[in-house]
Amino acid sequence: MLSKKLAGFISDMNFAHFPAHTVHMAKMAFLDWLGSTAAGGMEAPFQKAYAVIRGQGGFPQATILAIGEKTSCLNAALANGLASHIIELDDVHRAAIIHAGAAVIPAALAVAEMNGAAGKQLLEAIVAGYEVAIRVGESITPAHYFYWHTTGTCGTFGAAAAAGKLLGLTIDQLVWALGNAGTQAAGLWEFLADGAMSKHLHPGKAAQNGVLAALLAREDFTGATRILEGERGFCRATADSFDLDKLTSGLGQPPYKIEENSFKIHASCRHTHPAIDVILGLSASNGVKTDDIEEIRIHTYGTALSITENYKPSSVYAAKFSLPFCAALALKNGRCGLADFTEEALADPEIRDLMDKVVLTKDEGLDALHPACWPTIVEITCRTGGTCRERTDFPRGDPENPVSTDELLAKFRTLAAGPWGEKKVRGLEKAVLELENVENVRDLV
Amino acid sequence: MLSKKLAGFISDMNFAHFPAHTVHMAKMAFLDWLGSTAAGGMEAPFQKAYAVIRGQGGFPQATILAIGEKTSCLNAALANGLASHIIELDDVHRAAIIHAGAAVIPAALAVAEMNGAAGKQLLEAIVAGYEVAIRVGESITPAHYFYWHTTGTCGTFGAAAAAGKLLGLTIDQLVWALGNAGTQAAGLWEFLADGAMSKHLHPGKAAQNGVLAALLAREDFTGATRILEGERGFCRATADSFDLDKLTSGLGQPPYKIEENSFKIHASCRHTHPAIDVILGLSASNGVKTDDIEEIRIHTYGTALSITENYKPSSVYAAKFSLPFCAALALKNGRCGLADFTEEALADPEIRDLMDKVVLTKDEGLDALHPACWPTIVEITCRTGGTCRERTDFPRGDPENPVSTDELLAKFRTLAAGPWGEKKVRGLEKAVLELENVENVRDLV
Repeated sequence: MLSKKLAGFISDMNFAHFPAHTVHMAKMAFLDWLGSTAAGGMEAPFQKAYAVIRGQGGFPQATILAIGEKTSCLNAALANGLASHIIELDDVHRAAIIHAGAAVIPAALAVAEMNGAAGKQLLEAIVAGYEVAIRVGESITPAHYFYWHTTGTCGTFGAAAAAGKLLGLTIDQLVWALGNAGTQAAGLWEFLADGAMSKHLHPGKAAQNGVLAALLAREDFTGATRILEGERGFCRATADSFDLDKLTSGLGQPPYKIEENSFKIHASCRHTHPAIDVILGLSASNGVKTDDIEEIRIHTYGTALSITENYKPSSVYAAKFSLPFCAALALKNGRCGLADFTEEALADPEIRDLMDKVVLTKDEGLDALHPACWPTIVEITCRTGGTCRERTDFPRGDPENPVSTDELLAKFRTLAAGPWGEKKVRGLEKAVLELENVENVRDLV
Repeated sequence: MLSKKLAGFISDMNFAHFPAHTVHMAKMAFLDWLGSTAAGGMEAPFQKAYAVIRGQGGFPQATILAIGEKTSCLNAALANGLASHIIELDDVHRAAIIHAGAAVIPAALAVAEMNGAAGKQLLEAIVAGYEVAIRVGESITPAHYFYWHTTGTCGTFGAAAAAGKLLGLTIDQLVWALGNAGTQAAGLWEFLADGAMSKHLHPGKAAQNGVLAALLAREDFTGATRILEGERGFCRATADSFDLDKLTSGLGQPPYKIEENSFKIHASCRHTHPAIDVILGLSASNGVKTDDIEEIRIHTYGTALSITENYKPSSVYAAKFSLPFCAALALKNGRCGLADFTEEALADPEIRDLMDKVVLTKDEGLDALHPACWPTIVEITCRTGGTCRERTDFPRGDPENPVSTDELLAKFRTLAAGPWGEKKVRGLEKAVLELENVENVRDLV
């Protein structure tokens, strides 16, 4: 019984046995998530959802971080999960293609705050939640990913694991929590055709549904015991092919999955990052002039094309999922930060002109490497002659091509200082870097 | 755009144009749902879920009917939807294989109460919600049904339609509400292997998620505009084959789908009802003695077997999904009412003995007629010689084999009188029978 194995793992998680690198990566994931949540709270989708959540009320159990207002644990998980997945700068696991943090951390934080848990417990819950979300994702990717937004679906399992850990559930209860997480798991990619706001809703709902599953389990509300491998379970229902070994192979042994996490520097879909990295490198090293470019040929893997082959993004949000736009933006601006994705950029004739020169092709050799690598080759041909060409297998921020702690701290400050102010941001940063010493998570928020 | 057509239909719904039979069937559906909700509120799954919901708090916007306590609109939709789908006596649409009421009515009622809507508006919302839930169900049944619990998945669309109608959403907003309903839609049959409580959670979540989608849409939180037919939409993701014509063919013309509704008399899975009906009839007309029976052979359609072929139900709840158990219970007790499904019956050696004599076979001819008919042939062979045999195509309570209004009123009183008392039940019955004259739904609850 796979759920029982996962439940045993969750139950056994113990901060005292975490290697230092695990602790460091969990802190970085938490801090990175806080930055995305702060910045996301300024955006329209969050404000609209907040209007609905505020209108429902609830006991003051956990904080809606973007607002600094308390509401019920379930409402806070929804609000914070939604806020954290708007600006497209949240962390991602490459092989599972999941933003585990966006679903797991709001669930863990809401329950930790409600219960007055210690920093160590929050770290245990985050590591456990990432492990479960990522392993479920790895076991069904890529078949699942065509229709289903892994962050929403697999994220629900991770959120239930994190919440269940903090609630001190028994093994049976953890099994039921996973069962009722899987039966609530949802999130379809169809929103992408419209650049609709559903994407942000998905991790919010994953966090909320995972917490609900755990709270129900604490009352002995039962769930399916074979939700993953069962004949009518999650894997068969949502993937034509899957590998259940990935759920439990090496489970409980470091390194934990959270250490395979990738951090994002560019404010766009992760599938656009390999090309952006190569283009920024080629621009810098070859001094390419944008008005001299004849063609920008991008060879990549199939999933990147199926998500980002969009030559006519209809909104700034959709532009973050347009590989032609991101390639053009990188060439024009020399970066693709949050401030670069604007209505002005979207309407910019120079960027539109560059987009027309982007040619996207699926490369079977690169495709075979995905999702272990996210490989891309970019060839830029200039009118005045000459072609420059470069390849990457790992976008910046991947474990194989890491960003430094200082870069991550700087990213956090940039994202959070506007909404929360310098003072709060410095205090929060310090507290997260020493999270194992925080006695009560309520002091943090 | 199918969502836009459905949105136009929802927006145009007008009580003034309802035929009398539509109004009658909507009232009967509402009353029948109230009875199931009252009785379900006495059961353990509801009590456990209520402990969680109560623990979250919320503004007093809508009533948790089983408790008589107000909470937020979203919490009430969850609680009432969950309560209404516990005792297995709620109404069902045969071709869609969906308990539309369990998802649609709690959504409609929670929003109607929050807004102080009139009885006519509640009836409009119920008719609209049933129409959408059932049409989505018909378009993807039976392919969808193997993995997915239609009441949870398709019910979410119906709940969003009902809530959106009461919130007075624009066409665009209704489209977004349907988009965010579809992207939250969930509910797997895997719980059945354990007889787990997830089944009750599904319509509660469908109601809550549908209301959330509608509330978000009112804030212009956008959703996919082609959630049903899109390349990565709900139908392709959850069904190998589907018929999108069923979504809109004849849409807006009476008779409405709610008039095709079937009401349940036996307190078990609808797939067990055809056999129970035939067995009760054969017992009565042939005076079959249970100790004389050699074999009870049940010929039926494939879906009935895939859901109810369980010779070892592990709980009273699982027994409601066991065709051998229900057949044996019908023979022994002469009925399969709520009071007949007990631990004692489950342990009864006579019933166990009768169960061993049940032989289930899939009949290709009958299977071809499903789900338009739910056909079953039962042959009872006696030791003392002689075989009696009977067939039904429509279980009792189907439109083709209807129960009377008096029977439905009696069912409601039987279910609701215990939890709510005679006086309240008479008052509620009278109010529902005159629902078009109720000025404010708050007066009802």
